[in-house]
Amino acid sequence: MAPAGAKKGILERLDAGEVVIGDGGFVFALEKRGYVKAGPWTPEAAAEHPEAVRQLHREFLRAGSNVMQTFTFYASDDKLENRGHTQRFTGQQINEAACDLAREVASEGDALVAGGVSQTPSYLSCKSEDDVKTIFKKQIDVFVQKDVDFLIAEYFEHVEEAEWAVQVLKTTGKPVAATLCIGPEGDLNGVSPGDCAVRLVKAGAQIVGINCHFDPETCVKTVKMMKEGVEKAGLKAHYMSQPLAYHTPDCNRQGFIDLPEFPFSLEPRILTRWDMQKYAREAYNAGIRYIGGCCGFEPYHIRALAEELAPERGFLPAGSEKHGTWGSGLDMHTKPWVRARARRDYWEKLKPASGRPFCPSMSVPDGWGITKGHADLMQQKEATSQDQLKPLFDRADKGL
Amino acid sequence: MAPAGAKKGILERLDAGEVVIGDGGFVFALEKRGYVKAGPWTPEAAAEHPEAVRQLHREFLRAGSNVMQTFTFYASDDKLENRGHTQRFTGQQINEAACDLAREVASEGDALVAGGVSQTPSYLSCKSEDDVKTIFKKQIDVFVQKDVDFLIAEYFEHVEEAEWAVQVLKTTGKPVAATLCIGPEGDLNGVSPGDCAVRLVKAGAQIVGINCHFDPETCVKTVKMMKEGVEKAGLKAHYMSQPLAYHTPDCNRQGFIDLPEFPFSLEPRILTRWDMQKYAREAYNAGIRYIGGCCGFEPYHIRALAEELAPERGFLPAGSEKHGTWGSGLDMHTKPWVRARARRDYWEKLKPASGRPFCPSMSVPDGWGITKGHADLMQQKEATSQDQLKPLFDRADKGL
Amino acid sequence: MAPAGAKKGILERLDAGEVVIGDGGFVFALEKRGYVKAGPWTPEAAAEHPEAVRQLHREFLRAGSNVMQTFTFYASDDKLENRGHTQRFTGQQINEAACDLAREVASEGDALVAGGVSQTPSYLSCKSEDDVKTIFKKQIDVFVQKDVDFLIAEYFEHVEEAEWAVQVLKTTGKPVAATLCIGPEGDLNGVSPGDCAVRLVKAGAQIVGINCHFDPETCVKTVKMMKEGVEKAGLKAHYMSQPLAYHTPDCNRQGFIDLPEFPFSLEPRILTRWDMQKYAREAYNAGIRYIGGCCGFEPYHIRALAEELAPERGFLPAGSEKHGTWGSGLDMHTKPWVRARARRDYWEKLKPASGRPFCPSMSVPDGWGITKGHADLMQQKEATSQDQLKPLFDRADKGL
Amino acid sequence: MAPAGAKKGILERLDAGEVVIGDGGFVFALEKRGYVKAGPWTPEAAAEHPEAVRQLHREFLRAGSNVMQTFTFYASDDKLENRGHTQRFTGQQINEAACDLAREVASEGDALVAGGVSQTPSYLSCKSEDDVKTIFKKQIDVFVQKDVDFLIAEYFEHVEEAEWAVQVLKTTGKPVAATLCIGPEGDLNGVSPGDCAVRLVKAGAQIVGINCHFDPETCVKTVKMMKEGVEKAGLKAHYMSQPLAYHTPDCNRQGFIDLPEFPFSLEPRILTRWDMQKYAREAYNAGIRYIGGCCGFEPYHIRALAEELAPERGFLPAGSEKHGTWGSGLDMHTKPWVRARARRDYWEKLKPASGRPFCPSMSVPDGWGITKGHADLMQQKEATSQDQLKPLFDRADKGL
Repeated sequence: MAPAGAKKGILERLDAGEVVIGDGGFVFALEKRGYVKAGPWTPEAAAEHPEAVRQLHREFLRAGSNVMQTFTFYASDDKLENRGHTQRFTGQQINEAACDLAREVASEGDALVAGGVSQTPSYLSCKSEDDVKTIFKKQIDVFVQKDVDFLIAEYFEHVEEAEWAVQVLKTTGKPVAATLCIGPEGDLNGVSPGDCAVRLVKAGAQIVGINCHFDPETCVKTVKMMKEGVEKAGLKAHYMSQPLAYHTPDCNRQGFIDLPEFPFSLEPRILTRWDMQKYAREAYNAGIRYIGGCCGFEPYHIRALAEELAPERGFLPAGSEKHGTWGSGLDMHTKPWVRARARRDYWEKLKPASGRPFCPSMSVPDGWGITKGHADLMQQKEATSQDQLKPLFDRADKGL
Repeated sequence: MAPAGAKKGILERLDAGEVVIGDGGFVFALEKRGYVKAGPWTPEAAAEHPEAVRQLHREFLRAGSNVMQTFTFYASDDKLENRGHTQRFTGQQINEAACDLAREVASEGDALVAGGVSQTPSYLSCKSEDDVKTIFKKQIDVFVQKDVDFLIAEYFEHVEEAEWAVQVLKTTGKPVAATLCIGPEGDLNGVSPGDCAVRLVKAGAQIVGINCHFDPETCVKTVKMMKEGVEKAGLKAHYMSQPLAYHTPDCNRQGFIDLPEFPFSLEPRILTRWDMQKYAREAYNAGIRYIGGCCGFEPYHIRALAEELAPERGFLPAGSEKHGTWGSGLDMHTKPWVRARARRDYWEKLKPASGRPFCPSMSVPDGWGITKGHADLMQQKEATSQDQLKPLFDRADKGL
Repeated sequence: MAPAGAKKGILERLDAGEVVIGDGGFVFALEKRGYVKAGPWTPEAAAEHPEAVRQLHREFLRAGSNVMQTFTFYASDDKLENRGHTQRFTGQQINEAACDLAREVASEGDALVAGGVSQTPSYLSCKSEDDVKTIFKKQIDVFVQKDVDFLIAEYFEHVEEAEWAVQVLKTTGKPVAATLCIGPEGDLNGVSPGDCAVRLVKAGAQIVGINCHFDPETCVKTVKMMKEGVEKAGLKAHYMSQPLAYHTPDCNRQGFIDLPEFPFSLEPRILTRWDMQKYAREAYNAGIRYIGGCCGFEPYHIRALAEELAPERGFLPAGSEKHGTWGSGLDMHTKPWVRARARRDYWEKLKPASGRPFCPSMSVPDGWGITKGHADLMQQKEATSQDQLKPLFDRADKGL
Repeated sequence: MAPAGAKKGILERLDAGEVVIGDGGFVFALEKRGYVKAGPWTPEAAAEHPEAVRQLHREFLRAGSNVMQTFTFYASDDKLENRGHTQRFTGQQINEAACDLAREVASEGDALVAGGVSQTPSYLSCKSEDDVKTIFKKQIDVFVQKDVDFLIAEYFEHVEEAEWAVQVLKTTGKPVAATLCIGPEGDLNGVSPGDCAVRLVKAGAQIVGINCHFDPETCVKTVKMMKEGVEKAGLKAHYMSQPLAYHTPDCNRQGFIDLPEFPFSLEPRILTRWDMQKYAREAYNAGIRYIGGCCGFEPYHIRALAEELAPERGFLPAGSEKHGTWGSGLDMHTKPWVRARARRDYWEKLKPASGRPFCPSMSVPDGWGITKGHADLMQQKEATSQDQLKPLFDRADKGL
């Protein structure tokens, strides 16, 4: 295995027209495996249960990922603290451990290490540009010290905060990608996807796109709008999409957070591997070349992306040794009627049933219509008390 | 950690009225992680990728499992061979590696090791009782040598073959559990669940029940019928259920294999953690005390069983440190309307949407109506050829 | 037009192996047209708005009905009174008017007039056999005087009461048909469909079967069970089915009354004309020769029965002049893609969407589990008061 | 009853702020009753079966309609001829009969008679403005002679043709309403709803709005856009909506014609009476005062509009004598659990099930993307031949 330094960088790959396969969302995958707590969503597992995090990295690598994102989501000290995490590990310990794990596994294959920053409680609480930038600065210190290959500013609902992040990340000299968690309606201040993209490119991002909050169909549609905006402005960029692995046709502007099923009853919405192949093809056709995933993606979802784009890339991922394309492995199944499913035609046409005749196919999302600056979004150090929860419960019941 | 020998055995636990939490299905979980090939479904990963198998064992242990089943499903030489597995590992190597991994992780907590045998191609191909028993005998040699704690004969569609298996397993002197993969309509020869159970108990099984092929609701219903049969016959037994983690209200007698979504589009049917708590409670109320899972179960599903039965058992599993019961961890979520979901009332009532408005809620299962002895079920050493597949495809298309 | 007397009677037709097409349910059809009040469900429209009742008779005749059932459902004085009907018309006036309307329209084509009696409040309130029989006797006085062609005892949930009705009807010397509103689970006292049928035949009914409460699929299945019972007992009968025009896969023993959608939100369950053709064929194949409908049937549903069985009967109904079989009339549609639907293959395969993504596909029926003799079913002369309704509302809310 | 001349005219009513309740769609209602043939959709029943048409008028009047539209849809000689109608009646005979029937029933209550013209085959076949206007002129001769109360230009997919129609209708001196069958995306030439409305008002229409092709929700939304356009242009108009009684969330620009269920499997989409009350309220809140229906509306749907707006209008329709508002009549139902449904709260919250677990909730509409001028839309005198149908079938199959 060549040393990391010998690998082609992210921009070299994209400039050469290569497809870069991203990884999937660690928070949701590790929640199901028992190492992340939904609610706080903090990444202490990097230090606490490194074998579990390492194993997930390996599975994504094996599935075809070219990028190992450090598992550092929400790993700032203030977040770790106000989300009730008992301080067995400092933010720095977690961040360092996450970088080491990502690098260790990246070295086992053709993958780069990316360090990421996300939107901050401080922005929602209306802190100043300087305050917010200070937080980003502190987070990237570890990434610089651990020499990650590039940086990602991801999961921003307001383009203004993402611009600030990009400006800070650019100071490192490393390539910068920036993705918003918005849909075709634009960011939470009403800035259109096209305008968002232009602002991110102008701030210095070489790669722009969408991650999280919406299903692949919606994300690809939104990145297309970003691309049109960038091209109309006479600018250039690479494009990236890392959507959910959940079908979300019923989402409003705030995305899957607002669906009543978030986060503990999303199962019926999980995409199949065939849905993923469709996504990979549509993203490719839309001109997107950095194609990955976010919450809900399991290793086999990433493998499906790599399999769909194998003709363009010229190779299959390692994990395909355990997967016949388009179900062809089923020709070794015991039952003849299952062998009859060993073909593309069958799976591509199938409309899978939910097995839930008492459930609807779409939900009405919550629509509280509040964003940055609203009192309910101000964050406090203490856990939410029962007294604070009671009016929330009442309001929710009324809305049902 | 006490040595395995110091642990209470499976019968001691059940005789004492304790709840034993089983583990989940390795084949499906590892297929999603990239280590098992759907179609052959063979367990070479035990030798080939031990870190992946070990990690999954650990996650189930952490989720509350009291049993580590050796990952030896379909690990007989004839199966490994006729399913096209390149012989990097012998059946013996795989079986030994699987036993070692199960023991290693079991020793890290309060879990027993169980070795398992399943239905054979030979029975479907009408081989003699002696031939079939010889296969079982060979499989248990490794289990005896590795000194597993007890044995499970599981995944049998015909009670006759299961009886033969139980008779062989009994020769080891170890406790024996036996589960069929049948529903309320009985086995594929039309023997009712009650009669099946009586025959298994008479053959020597101390624990009887159902695994795989049907959803929890159906499995619990079928085990109840078994229990009624056993009690009516004046016999005694312990009861066990290890159902699918998929909703299957539309299945016929052959179970989920016949659903058009099997095995690559079952996602919309996956049970939520709340569905699992309901299952655990219903199984407990039905008098079942060995409660586990099969295909589709992920670690968080097993944890849900352990959490539901925590009042009876007196403790929560280790993995609950990352899970507030009934979503209570959401009181630390950023968005106030998500904090409003931090309660049992919310999740218990929610009817989750599929996000798939173009899909139905139930499917028409294949119904080829053939079983043991039919020419199409005779197994051959060679992979199925395209010439053999063509008529299967045509027949399947006609049925659509 | 030949005088009624010259027509072949109902038994002559059935004995000759002819298919007899019944009519549809007047109560539901006239409720939608504004002439029947849901709740009381009484037939005062026969006297109050004869033009509306006559028109509906004509539409069913035109659609192919060979039987005009007098619109006399619930037309006993006690029912009219205790259901709050202002006494503009006596029961006798309504019954006479209904007979005249049925005869008038029957004379315009090849149809017979049938007078019907149904289950009584008195039976549910545990009145004696004599009391109940007296009610039936009073009802048939008008039918005898108006010389209807045959009699139907229909809509009975308890076979015992139906037997009493048959015994009374037999005293007229006219042919007697008897249908229960039960499903495969049997009557509300748990008598199986086979045993019910045997008892009705022994009581003197020449035609037996099922009407109302369940969808065609369930009704045909239940009539099959009746036929098996009758044949096993060495008896002979003709068979008849008059099911709902609503899909009811989710019903329990009490039928569609218990569905939460009854009676004002049943629209999504309405059968298409193609569903009806399927029903006609299955009923015919099951040996049923008197094939009609009940609640929900509109004239075009009856026409679909007549069109499906046109090959057996040798002619199409008059109404088919306005209907190309299997959609063939669409070859004259303006849009070419609609012309492409002018064929059997298209409509037979189509799985029609509900256009209701926020609704489930099945409902949980109410299951209050009370029947004949329960205090809540005792009927009173006065309308239910708000004080009486309050505990019902509370109980219903709790069950949601 | 006062002579028609003594009634307040349509504009007097609307100018006074009154709510005008329209009627429902005759073509679909009479198709189900057996008097209209789907495909040709011609109104010969006005002359052929006047009793059926009269009865439907009466039912709508009784339900609360203030307008009796003459049943003259597609009643031009060229349409009658090229749709294969055997010439038992001339177009003039049909038109005259229709006017007489509408006037007869209107005189029985507080209703006006409206004569209507619709889009022409000639426009789609690119005939000149003069040719198209000549057709409209010929159609209104009968309306003038029969002295209808006002005129409606309805069911236009292209605003240009609707403008021509309005210009012709204005020559009569009678009030003119104009409705397009378009959705929020605008007419088939891409003109926005707002611009369409402005052009219609400038052409002389005093009432503008939407009819047919989309469900109430979509129609109200589109009329709102029209109103915004008109107000922005500094103009004034009255607004009207006559939507489908089918849920169509999945429609594209061409409306329900393109749904695969059109026209013979739309049943699962039929609106309930409660859906209708919601529509009436939303239409009223949007400033629409002429509120009626189109295809799929049955008399009870119109009654629901009148009941919802009874507080504003000060009275209930005659048909409400047979309908307790919000299901209150159920307090007289036999079963107590049905009596528990006698209240608004119950019906307003109910999500009705389809009873069709094997069907989806939404469909993919056909999208042939052709309109005015395309060869496939040119109309011929002869019926479409099998040779012409074959390529349509093939194209349709491919699209599935």
